[in-house]
Amino acid sequence: MSMCKSADCKLCDFLATKEDVETSFNRVESQKSKCKFGKQGVCCKLCSNGPCKITPKSPRGVCGADADTIVSRNFLRAIAAGSACYLHVVETTARNLKSIGEGYGNVKIKSPETLDKLAKLFDIVETDVNQKSIKVADAVLKDLYKPRFEKMELVKKLAYPPRYKKWEELNILPGGAKSEVFDAIVKTSTNLNSDPIDMLFNALSLGVTTGIYGLMLTNLLNDVILGAPKIRQAKVGFRVIDEDYINIMITGHQHSDIAHLQDKLIDEDVKKKAIELGAKGFRLVGCTCVGQDLQLRGEHYKEVFSGHAGNNYTSEAVIATGGIDLIVSEFNCTIPGLEIVAEQFKVKTICIDDVAKKKDAEYIKFDMANAESVSDKIIDAALESYANRRNVITIDIPKDHGHDDVVTGVSEGSLKEFLGGDWKPLVDLIAQGKIKGIAGVVGCSSLTGKGHDMFTVELTKELIKRNILVLSAGCSSGGLENVGLMSPGAADLAGDSLKEVCKSLGIPPVLNFGPCLAIGRLEMVATELAEYLGIDIPDLPLVLSAPQWLEEQALADAAFGLSLGLPVHVAISPFIDGSEFVTKVLQEDLVNITGGKLIVEDDVVKAADILEKIIEDRRIGLHI
Amino acid sequence: MSMCKSADCKLCDFLATKEDVETSFNRVESQKSKCKFGKQGVCCKLCSNGPCKITPKSPRGVCGADADTIVSRNFLRAIAAGSACYLHVVETTARNLKSIGEGYGNVKIKSPETLDKLAKLFDIVETDVNQKSIKVADAVLKDLYKPRFEKMELVKKLAYPPRYKKWEELNILPGGAKSEVFDAIVKTSTNLNSDPIDMLFNALSLGVTTGIYGLMLTNLLNDVILGAPKIRQAKVGFRVIDEDYINIMITGHQHSDIAHLQDKLIDEDVKKKAIELGAKGFRLVGCTCVGQDLQLRGEHYKEVFSGHAGNNYTSEAVIATGGIDLIVSEFNCTIPGLEIVAEQFKVKTICIDDVAKKKDAEYIKFDMANAESVSDKIIDAALESYANRRNVITIDIPKDHGHDDVVTGVSEGSLKEFLGGDWKPLVDLIAQGKIKGIAGVVGCSSLTGKGHDMFTVELTKELIKRNILVLSAGCSSGGLENVGLMSPGAADLAGDSLKEVCKSLGIPPVLNFGPCLAIGRLEMVATELAEYLGIDIPDLPLVLSAPQWLEEQALADAAFGLSLGLPVHVAISPFIDGSEFVTKVLQEDLVNITGGKLIVEDDVVKAADILEKIIEDRRIGLHI
Repeated sequence: MSMCKSADCKLCDFLATKEDVETSFNRVESQKSKCKFGKQGVCCKLCSNGPCKITPKSPRGVCGADADTIVSRNFLRAIAAGSACYLHVVETTARNLKSIGEGYGNVKIKSPETLDKLAKLFDIVETDVNQKSIKVADAVLKDLYKPRFEKMELVKKLAYPPRYKKWEELNILPGGAKSEVFDAIVKTSTNLNSDPIDMLFNALSLGVTTGIYGLMLTNLLNDVILGAPKIRQAKVGFRVIDEDYINIMITGHQHSDIAHLQDKLIDEDVKKKAIELGAKGFRLVGCTCVGQDLQLRGEHYKEVFSGHAGNNYTSEAVIATGGIDLIVSEFNCTIPGLEIVAEQFKVKTICIDDVAKKKDAEYIKFDMANAESVSDKIIDAALESYANRRNVITIDIPKDHGHDDVVTGVSEGSLKEFLGGDWKPLVDLIAQGKIKGIAGVVGCSSLTGKGHDMFTVELTKELIKRNILVLSAGCSSGGLENVGLMSPGAADLAGDSLKEVCKSLGIPPVLNFGPCLAIGRLEMVATELAEYLGIDIPDLPLVLSAPQWLEEQALADAAFGLSLGLPVHVAISPFIDGSEFVTKVLQEDLVNITGGKLIVEDDVVKAADILEKIIEDRRIGLHI
Repeated sequence: MSMCKSADCKLCDFLATKEDVETSFNRVESQKSKCKFGKQGVCCKLCSNGPCKITPKSPRGVCGADADTIVSRNFLRAIAAGSACYLHVVETTARNLKSIGEGYGNVKIKSPETLDKLAKLFDIVETDVNQKSIKVADAVLKDLYKPRFEKMELVKKLAYPPRYKKWEELNILPGGAKSEVFDAIVKTSTNLNSDPIDMLFNALSLGVTTGIYGLMLTNLLNDVILGAPKIRQAKVGFRVIDEDYINIMITGHQHSDIAHLQDKLIDEDVKKKAIELGAKGFRLVGCTCVGQDLQLRGEHYKEVFSGHAGNNYTSEAVIATGGIDLIVSEFNCTIPGLEIVAEQFKVKTICIDDVAKKKDAEYIKFDMANAESVSDKIIDAALESYANRRNVITIDIPKDHGHDDVVTGVSEGSLKEFLGGDWKPLVDLIAQGKIKGIAGVVGCSSLTGKGHDMFTVELTKELIKRNILVLSAGCSSGGLENVGLMSPGAADLAGDSLKEVCKSLGIPPVLNFGPCLAIGRLEMVATELAEYLGIDIPDLPLVLSAPQWLEEQALADAAFGLSLGLPVHVAISPFIDGSEFVTKVLQEDLVNITGGKLIVEDDVVKAADILEKIIEDRRIGLHI
């Protein structure tokens, strides 16, 4: 079978030995003929007069919609859907925190400090930790459920004031988050909104919603429940799968949904059941972003969490090792391709949130009130699967895949702590030019373009070589850690001055913030740096790149970056090239509106050149 | 220019004289090459690995999604968007009623009887009409804003009990409407739900939400505010445009948003301003569904409403008469093609809801609290436009287009009243075989397939010839009335026994329920008939056809029909043919689940044969 490239050569070598296993890597070839209208965003399938497509000879659809309308409509709908995904996650997280406060789930919150911080931010005066949990959660839920004509209240409490002012001026402060998404879906329906400007501003507003709630708040609420990240070294790659244990692979983005399970799996009574079957106990194997979340907070879950195996498009290969006994899916990115490989390797899938219900999987609805029963069912299924499959499945785990010394647990909090409780050391290093600037290389992994993690890894190497410190969050992190760029030894790949910094601090030149949700953490770092310097975010020597963005969620992330006034690079155009107008607004005009700028560049060196130039210009602007 | 066909020959003749005006009719030819993957629903544009398409050689997308997943995902997302549109409308309507109760907008409710009926249904005990309005509106809003895990309360109060029981058994009773839509959007995002069964059941659930709230309740709330329909004869077609007046064309679906305006336009002070400019006053010209709504309640607006000119795809031609001075858009179907024709004929567009913001149009946000100011601005804009354009624009209104004697104002209430306050006369006529059965021919008008209103009109003729009484609602009504099928004289086209019934009652064989929202009224008629007979809805000799469905909203309507257990015919497949599984579920298995059945048939006679056979089988089942 043909196979797409990966930056992770050992992964390719492993897959090459599995001739009978079809994964996404093999399907890239058969899907290589791409519809140019779809790629340019000028295909419209909204009504039965269609599909229509815009060409020089047919500049309008039957209804009269032109390329600008169709492209911006498709773009806004994608961002609305992506925003919805993140908002579903923050809602679940807030509900879990509330339920815990109400006494459900038998989960003890692990970071009362973060809870205090949130309570203070939200002006909640309350001493009882349970009541405080409930009130903090309710403040979030209340905002999510407001109608669109009522502005959300927490935006002002969480946003950097100069940005809040800008958003207010631009009239993009969001109303109730769920209603905002809802109306964007309405707007992008047939024969409704046709105004590209209105739709692009709406996309920015959804970016704010996504960023403040879906990203920032989800992280902080998860920290309350599951513990704040602590910097440490950890194992990553296929080596984390230990066949002596009953292994459960979690896929998704809702870490708090497995808070109960991860405590339960190390109960002596539960472990005993595993031991009776000949295993040493249970292990959670990290995969996709929830795995990154587990890794980020790994300090709190040393016994149950075996490490992060890989990102979205590594998950099929993880199953093909034979070492996984059960998949628990609570959100995306549970790719449909897993279904086929899981069947082949006799791995059952349990879905605990119906938005992520997979074909042929069992669905058990999770909420904190029935956490005990859900965990029991998962454990029973894992035991049963282990007993039934281990004697019929060949286990082949490439133990040379991955690393033992990945630096992880980096967050806005732990990084500042690492720096001595103050951003000064980092700012000084930047001011001295030892670190030229910061690039967030974030987002998904995709398989098209240059291949799995190819652009992400190559661009990162190019940036660190230029003494630009890279922060990563999302499936991009999974790729970067598996190829060794997040191990201290990677300092050797950095430019001289960054190398010196890394060596002296014992850190790699690429810092691992974890899941895509943590793009919000990275933006908190940006905000804190701007605040420290007394400047606005667009003045920072800081750029974003989501080179291999994959999903609608990534576009919602990008919309937040653009609202924050950051340059956002992508290697694959977000299906907008068919409209000169939309392209011009996002790539040129926006810089005079929010300060943000979309950069589409599919050549690694050219992309690095552009990002470096922006950083250099910003340095000049700051007189450093 | 090439032009697609229309059942409305006079419309075609008129457009043929306008060589310099490009309308949707002209664009059908340039968009005739249709993407077969899009049409079959097997194109996926959700992620940057795509677009992917399913072919025999590539049976899965890069991620592993197969045709069943992709088709059901596209289908559910379309229904969610369509449902969102209707729910936006019911929310606006409920908010308008609430605001009126709170004393805003200076609008006096016109049907306290309907308000009493709703209050009784909702168990609201309240004597003050304003408080009652607020409480009724709040009951609706409360349900819309519930989280998804809380079931909505009004479903049980409004649904036919045997259907409610069925929905409960099938676990498709909806939670909070807006959250249901929201989560369906999440579900249909990349690498989330892949289970076609879960997604199809979700579509049915959204159908219930759409039907009970978006359709039934919107009608009833509008009746409270704007008056209940009364059967009368009215003028339709281009003849309703009187160049002696300042003409405002309204497009959309939110009748209550113009409640204030339509009263204001006949204020003596306001009329005086028009008269000073040489006009006789103001007229609202009906177009799209809000025009049907005005027509339906025309008895209450004799002075200001000039009549219904045409449906969605007639609107460009309406502007091309030159007789319209201002367009007010409050929702779809304000087709983008209007923008070009409006510019050509110097007609300004004002949008009063940003979900329907049109390119180059002015946006003035409407709510009841600022109704006075919005009406003033609209009136000023209309006056200014009249003054500026009348001397530079040629007016050419084909006064022979349309009819003077269309029977309108038919609703679940007025029809029953017409029958003497009881369904018995209608049931007797059906039992005696004089009326063989009832067909709802509803939904949009499209331009593809056989052409504008072609299938709708031909199928209707075929059905009445077979003594099947046709009820219509939606743009289909606009087509049917403009070709004369809703005038009493159309009785001559009916089969002998139906003709006799029509002649004796003085009614046409096609009854006009008005806007697409009134599909909900038609389904109230079905429910009342079933209740009268003591049977469930799927046992009735009643079928639905949305032959020329156009928009996602129509698919949401269809999902309600299927949940109600009705056979639903469409001439154009709703982009599902690429999945045998989805096709089989909707076209075969569903009949054993809800009793409903999707019928896809693009031949008029064959479609009529199928629908007639179902009616005949139902008659046998009822021993009549």
